[in-house]
Amino acid sequence: MIIVLKKDEQAETIRNITDVLANNGFTHSVLPGAKYILIPVLGDFTTEDLGRFRSFKGVHKILKISAPYYLVTKEFREKTVVDLGDGVRIGDGFCTIAGPCSVESEESIREIASLLSKSGVRMLRGGTFKLRSSPYSFQGMGVEGLRLLNSAAREHNMKCISEISDIRNIDSFMEYVDVIQVGARNMQNYALLKELSTTKKPILLKRSPSATAEEFLLSAEYLLSGGNENVILCERGIKSFDSAFRNDINIASVPHYKHISHLPVILDPSHGIGVPTYIPAVAESAVVLGADGVMVEVHTDPSSALSDGFQALIPEKFLAMQKRISQLVDFVHNQMDS
Amino acid sequence: MIIVLKKDEQAETIRNITDVLANNGFTHSVLPGAKYILIPVLGDFTTEDLGRFRSFKGVHKILKISAPYYLVTKEFREKTVVDLGDGVRIGDGFCTIAGPCSVESEESIREIASLLSKSGVRMLRGGTFKLRSSPYSFQGMGVEGLRLLNSAAREHNMKCISEISDIRNIDSFMEYVDVIQVGARNMQNYALLKELSTTKKPILLKRSPSATAEEFLLSAEYLLSGGNENVILCERGIKSFDSAFRNDINIASVPHYKHISHLPVILDPSHGIGVPTYIPAVAESAVVLGADGVMVEVHTDPSSALSDGFQALIPEKFLAMQKRISQLVDFVHNQMDS
Amino acid sequence: MIIVLKKDEQAETIRNITDVLANNGFTHSVLPGAKYILIPVLGDFTTEDLGRFRSFKGVHKILKISAPYYLVTKEFREKTVVDLGDGVRIGDGFCTIAGPCSVESEESIREIASLLSKSGVRMLRGGTFKLRSSPYSFQGMGVEGLRLLNSAAREHNMKCISEISDIRNIDSFMEYVDVIQVGARNMQNYALLKELSTTKKPILLKRSPSATAEEFLLSAEYLLSGGNENVILCERGIKSFDSAFRNDINIASVPHYKHISHLPVILDPSHGIGVPTYIPAVAESAVVLGADGVMVEVHTDPSSALSDGFQALIPEKFLAMQKRISQLVDFVHNQMDS
Amino acid sequence: MIIVLKKDEQAETIRNITDVLANNGFTHSVLPGAKYILIPVLGDFTTEDLGRFRSFKGVHKILKISAPYYLVTKEFREKTVVDLGDGVRIGDGFCTIAGPCSVESEESIREIASLLSKSGVRMLRGGTFKLRSSPYSFQGMGVEGLRLLNSAAREHNMKCISEISDIRNIDSFMEYVDVIQVGARNMQNYALLKELSTTKKPILLKRSPSATAEEFLLSAEYLLSGGNENVILCERGIKSFDSAFRNDINIASVPHYKHISHLPVILDPSHGIGVPTYIPAVAESAVVLGADGVMVEVHTDPSSALSDGFQALIPEKFLAMQKRISQLVDFVHNQMDS
Repeated sequence: MIIVLKKDEQAETIRNITDVLANNGFTHSVLPGAKYILIPVLGDFTTEDLGRFRSFKGVHKILKISAPYYLVTKEFREKTVVDLGDGVRIGDGFCTIAGPCSVESEESIREIASLLSKSGVRMLRGGTFKLRSSPYSFQGMGVEGLRLLNSAAREHNMKCISEISDIRNIDSFMEYVDVIQVGARNMQNYALLKELSTTKKPILLKRSPSATAEEFLLSAEYLLSGGNENVILCERGIKSFDSAFRNDINIASVPHYKHISHLPVILDPSHGIGVPTYIPAVAESAVVLGADGVMVEVHTDPSSALSDGFQALIPEKFLAMQKRISQLVDFVHNQMDS
Repeated sequence: MIIVLKKDEQAETIRNITDVLANNGFTHSVLPGAKYILIPVLGDFTTEDLGRFRSFKGVHKILKISAPYYLVTKEFREKTVVDLGDGVRIGDGFCTIAGPCSVESEESIREIASLLSKSGVRMLRGGTFKLRSSPYSFQGMGVEGLRLLNSAAREHNMKCISEISDIRNIDSFMEYVDVIQVGARNMQNYALLKELSTTKKPILLKRSPSATAEEFLLSAEYLLSGGNENVILCERGIKSFDSAFRNDINIASVPHYKHISHLPVILDPSHGIGVPTYIPAVAESAVVLGADGVMVEVHTDPSSALSDGFQALIPEKFLAMQKRISQLVDFVHNQMDS
Repeated sequence: MIIVLKKDEQAETIRNITDVLANNGFTHSVLPGAKYILIPVLGDFTTEDLGRFRSFKGVHKILKISAPYYLVTKEFREKTVVDLGDGVRIGDGFCTIAGPCSVESEESIREIASLLSKSGVRMLRGGTFKLRSSPYSFQGMGVEGLRLLNSAAREHNMKCISEISDIRNIDSFMEYVDVIQVGARNMQNYALLKELSTTKKPILLKRSPSATAEEFLLSAEYLLSGGNENVILCERGIKSFDSAFRNDINIASVPHYKHISHLPVILDPSHGIGVPTYIPAVAESAVVLGADGVMVEVHTDPSSALSDGFQALIPEKFLAMQKRISQLVDFVHNQMDS
Repeated sequence: MIIVLKKDEQAETIRNITDVLANNGFTHSVLPGAKYILIPVLGDFTTEDLGRFRSFKGVHKILKISAPYYLVTKEFREKTVVDLGDGVRIGDGFCTIAGPCSVESEESIREIASLLSKSGVRMLRGGTFKLRSSPYSFQGMGVEGLRLLNSAAREHNMKCISEISDIRNIDSFMEYVDVIQVGARNMQNYALLKELSTTKKPILLKRSPSATAEEFLLSAEYLLSGGNENVILCERGIKSFDSAFRNDINIASVPHYKHISHLPVILDPSHGIGVPTYIPAVAESAVVLGADGVMVEVHTDPSSALSDGFQALIPEKFLAMQKRISQLVDFVHNQMDS
């Protein structure tokens, strides 16, 4: 951290600041410049520390040198693979997570699981406790949905994932799913993050549409800091002024997370884009961008879906995409110059 | 809702759609145009309905006519006053809510309550369970903080407000505070909203920095739809690409909410702007913009604050602002032409 | 500027950098820290300098201390008043600039000038060379429009302003208008800015919807750096993800410009908001926020306007607003505590 | 266009509107609904028409059915290839445009041209009249730069491109470059667009960081509407609240333009991302996303570059990327299932 003061601050002001630093055991120095006086201070600082110093009399600005996270970075660990058992390993190869937006009935979830399994998909997704911006929308099948999702996955030797919406349902999720999804709207629900951080359960953390990349990684740091190392990052875009798409997935965000962090990164084009036409090309590009997988919505009959049907792929489109992804993974991982 | 199809869609496609509409009891008509065929459909539609129809084969786009909320609008009710007792009424006159970012000790909260009370403030704020983006930041005093806040408020015949961060703490908040604040990060924590909607406790709902005005009003609709009519809207800005300010409060947002909704609207310049220099002018402008009040952070010694000290006003600045606000309220409400 | 290197960079890397600094005459020092090495460098740096140093081998990041503008700041000058003659002074009191979006005919511009003049307005606005995002929209009356605008203004002892869209038309604007408006789309048309900077003609510079506050002030710096001191800043909002409004005017932007700069600041709620309902309250709040005036569109018959009629005020609404503004100006400037 | 009125509007209000429609020759109908009255109107409407109708008394909102462009769409033409001669065809295969940010000297531009040519690059880029946000930054070599760029390109049988910043320099650009670049800051400089639209010169139009996809396509429509069919779209991102990157390139924007338009689409990761580390992966993903090429900055010594050196690739990184791109192009275009 560097504290910046205007050149013309009085000696007393500077002494006040350096006294506080000294009293709190911070190593620092004072550098007079042409227009500003710089006080570099050594140590790891929380955003709260930065805020406190910013309010000192005479302080012009505070410059932050390092990001306030550590456990998520490659300095802490080179690579994380989240091992779900039975050969399903997130972070080791390219993983397609697929399924309907919501579990709607036993019959439909079994049908889609069967279809996906045949195309090589090992991870089944399905919403059970839906978070809807309108109180008048379909709210999900709840625990019964979790049970049906689990059962459909097990039938085909698949693993399953569903989104938690209420901290009081953790036990049910621990029982029925292999990965708990923390959705975009709960990315900063710290009570939930803390509770999950004390388990060993794999967590797929989605970026909030209003979170900077740094805030997203800080939420992952919450999970790691409590002792849970099985964290998967999931990018699904942020809000932008252009309404051409549902959200705005930055084309460089996957390379950015992979550059900074050891955690696996999944791209979610379904929620990030919201227009099925573009989903296959974007999912395929994820291979080249270095993602560890994609999560897509598939529905056998999107027009009858009880939620978000408009963004689901029909099986025919999904299967074609899945085939192209396999070809690309093989080419990019095994045949291209690196 | 209007379903738009391209002119060259086949008769069968159109019949498929109109059949579904008819089978589901929707009144509709079919209007052939030069380049498009329009199918206006009567009724109230959820976003989910819109999504489902969007995925029909042949549909070019869906046009939404009315916003998917109702209870928050002036069509439902003309005006809401949230009455906290002892003459503290939000939505009837201009209300200043003030206090430190966090309750830090019994002594400090009593000191600030005394000071604020003397300047006419009737609502004391203070964080107790803090939501921090870094897991390494100060996390608040918890229930003890609630008790101290309540006690300091009662000593001066004030009402108090604090932010809830965990649905499992509702009982403590019901006991100690007069208004429960649902913060920006929990604006779409629907489990929490639903639970609070079944109480009669006044709720101050803050806008998430990634929420559109429509999404913000939909979260208020959640609270109203469960039966809780004591809802207060609080604007604190959205994220923008300009880092000159902490967030971006749209200058027209207060007039916009007051135009659409019967609910009281509070402006929070402390979190919305984050630069104390600009807070007084912005808080004063809230009077002219038609807000029902402001919520500001005040700290007797910002540089020692355990959180967000940089954005708190010192008492001297606060008292000057409070005096100017009183003068403006009197002038705008009583002396100006309307 | 502070150059930040990782702690483990080799001595040779550091020497390379300090050699370049020394060879270019930059005073600097080297500060080893716990995780980083800091090299503070004295001097005024352009963004280009920052970019160049950022690409040095071993550089982790570059921290900027001061904004790259100077002539626009209060350090350079305390206050600028743009004097248009005949008692019309922008930056001294509160100024309302009003008129139609476009000059449409001699009759209509004379009618509106007469009406505005009677309510005390001294500055007439009117588009002549329109910049439209669609090539199929009305493109303006051109030089004939300038002549009519000038003539209507002179008839009522008013000054006039119109927006320039083509650098090749500068001579006509010099002849016919008192203030040349550089619109949002040309805020970074540097060829135009440079040409205008060599004149003494008053320039009203509008903020681009994609410009940060810093970029906006840098464009003003372009005008000042060429020798033209008669610059007026005009805020009209930026793009945001919320489509409730045409643009997003940050409530703190006027106080921010006034805090940093000596230049007069005008608020344009018509283009910034785009919804006539909210324009009066926002224009009135500009008085409290410290603006030097507002610019609003007024049209005697918005529904027949050839451009942007939807955002124009009808005369009745404008006159009521103008009366309230006068009352507020008198109260805020003369009667309130400061 | 559909005009929406509230159900309770009086018959007279409706008649006023339908009279105007009838008098102007618009075919329309009137559809009473439960809460609203809909008036669908046939025809192509400019944004200006929409604005005018929005200001009619009684109008609740105007719904737009079709985007206000036509010539850029696939309905007008299936595919455009911009043929530059000598076998350089943009829109037919994948094209890499490369070169320094600025032409800095005869020696350096010849050196880089030679290096690029050997790796198969056929298009040389280089800035000559720079547009810099600071008036104190390097402004480019001007016409002499154009001449050097042209000469270096011709020496290696390459084509060249440079950005125009002043409408008065069109003749020089016509003489020296094969493609005129209209940069992001001039995307809505309509005087310039109109002038260029009357030539046959190929134009590469960059998206403004504040333009929606629709506004970007409308600017291309300007060029086409004047008769110039040789237009190339170039995506380089928009502004967002996340400062992790220079700009925000939506991962779906290339598929979106290709879906709507017949024009070739080039991705510019250098300006769009600004961090060299991520440029190769992003440029390679452009192949999978369906782009017609990429434009990247390359500099033999980024740390001595006179502008934007920080975002340029060094030759070694560029050559590795170019090789991987070639492999991907061959695989994706020739070997994958489509």
